[in-house]
Amino acid sequence: MAEVSNSRENFADQLITTILHKNSCIVVGLDPYFKFIPATIKEKFSISQKQGAEYASRVILEFNIQVIDLIAPLVGIVKPQIAFYELYGSWGVWAYAETIKYAKQKGLIVIGDIKRGDVPSTAEAYAAAHIGTVHIDHVVETPFAADAITVNPFLGSDSLHPFFRTAKEQNKGIFILVKTSNPASGEFQDLICGEKKLYEIIAEKTHAWGKDFIGKKGYSAIGAVVGATFSHEISALRKIMPTAYFLVPGYGAQGATAKDIEYCFNSDGLGAIINASRSILYAYNVSPWKEKYGISAWKEATQKAVITMNEEIRKIFKSY
Amino acid sequence: MAEVSNSRENFADQLITTILHKNSCIVVGLDPYFKFIPATIKEKFSISQKQGAEYASRVILEFNIQVIDLIAPLVGIVKPQIAFYELYGSWGVWAYAETIKYAKQKGLIVIGDIKRGDVPSTAEAYAAAHIGTVHIDHVVETPFAADAITVNPFLGSDSLHPFFRTAKEQNKGIFILVKTSNPASGEFQDLICGEKKLYEIIAEKTHAWGKDFIGKKGYSAIGAVVGATFSHEISALRKIMPTAYFLVPGYGAQGATAKDIEYCFNSDGLGAIINASRSILYAYNVSPWKEKYGISAWKEATQKAVITMNEEIRKIFKSY
Repeated sequence: MAEVSNSRENFADQLITTILHKNSCIVVGLDPYFKFIPATIKEKFSISQKQGAEYASRVILEFNIQVIDLIAPLVGIVKPQIAFYELYGSWGVWAYAETIKYAKQKGLIVIGDIKRGDVPSTAEAYAAAHIGTVHIDHVVETPFAADAITVNPFLGSDSLHPFFRTAKEQNKGIFILVKTSNPASGEFQDLICGEKKLYEIIAEKTHAWGKDFIGKKGYSAIGAVVGATFSHEISALRKIMPTAYFLVPGYGAQGATAKDIEYCFNSDGLGAIINASRSILYAYNVSPWKEKYGISAWKEATQKAVITMNEEIRKIFKSY
Repeated sequence: MAEVSNSRENFADQLITTILHKNSCIVVGLDPYFKFIPATIKEKFSISQKQGAEYASRVILEFNIQVIDLIAPLVGIVKPQIAFYELYGSWGVWAYAETIKYAKQKGLIVIGDIKRGDVPSTAEAYAAAHIGTVHIDHVVETPFAADAITVNPFLGSDSLHPFFRTAKEQNKGIFILVKTSNPASGEFQDLICGEKKLYEIIAEKTHAWGKDFIGKKGYSAIGAVVGATFSHEISALRKIMPTAYFLVPGYGAQGATAKDIEYCFNSDGLGAIINASRSILYAYNVSPWKEKYGISAWKEATQKAVITMNEEIRKIFKSY
């Protein structure tokens, strides 16, 4: 696709600037669960039999806007998970795109959690859609314009190169699934292939792919998704991929604690961003905030959950 | 998500009924490349600077409708690749949903080529969106309503179970990526894990997962994506997964011929559906049709390409 001139700096440099500025390495996952969105937001809209998906999508966008306004002073990065938007068809995908737009207006870095992976010609379309530009006759569009996306490496390096090329042209970031946070992730990812586990082989490749993407601060725009739920694997992965930024899911709702993520970081206190979604968005429904706040004070619960998570993670490093 | 009562038969039985009725096992890939869509279709719409994506999406839908009308008498299955719709943002996703709706109205089976794969709670959202139902207060929606989808197994069995559950409830089909058609597919898929290659291990699991989904005709609603470009692997995979339907990409534009796909089929002449996309949709631009027809006769070129491909594949089995 197009090589639009782009004067922004390397994605890893942007990320580190934001992390240091906000003094936070939290990524808030914008995973809208319609049923958990407070009624005070839903009451702003009316529902008719034919407009279920449009209604849900407008509610979700309004909720996201309120969440972004709340958290923007406290964190620098958000990660909408596109599945929870596809749930409402093209209207939901509209809400996904508008959410990204609003978050970027508020100065946040947006990681589109799309986990795409396909044959090269198809991967090229995904890359253009999510982090690149699309030409329609004389019109140039940027359909989703995320700052970075997650991708699935299962199809091999030729399926990833279109993402890398677009990231290079546009100064965007890529996070490759290396070791995911779900309980059965070991089923294939931990298989021993020769002397190494599959995820270690993918980690080595990720490190190699990232070499051409190192920014001024020593980190690569090609990062890795490494689940916090597998803390004993993290140290080894940190050594294999010293210059990769880790996007670490699993904190909060999936059970990982600050202790589990300690080894995601390098000794410079950098190298990892920690995701939490439901434990922040719906903090009013999660202990200990549930008991203290309840749904009418959902904003206070969410703010308190972010502040507490920031503090928990900062304790790991005094330099933070 | 909801257990809507569904009296339709097992997906594999639906598939076989359609294949026998149409005497064709071709899957036409609906991969719209805007630049290859004939000007006669584009001229129906006007373009304005702000409506590039809407314009492109309306052109694509109109092209798909004309293609579906052309091919519906000749084939029973279509496969829109969602990446080529995401390219135009939420408008593109609207065209994807409308394309599925129109193809189903014309009696075609629709495989959504989405290659999704994520942690269980997220996979549940993808399953509901693409083959299931979504509840929004008292409204029930079926956002995309494909008959089957492709999924990526890299995250392990817990990431696939939500797709299986939804497929069971709704009588839908799932095609698991086992061995993909791209040149570098072997990079991870061919790694030797103990005594077997990774794709063979995934094939064994696919066979096991599919056992609960066998229809009256002996095939499972859990199928496999097996690239035609690796013909020597196909025989082995046929033996590992005797009851799985193979969705076979790579014919035509990716270089595979009728000879390459011979071993995709069981001795009953069933067990595989063969995909071609660009070589049919843009046949006017591909030899030998290019020389004979050209763009003004694009419909004749597409029809002739389908008829010829049907004939080439039927030659493999006299029973066809």
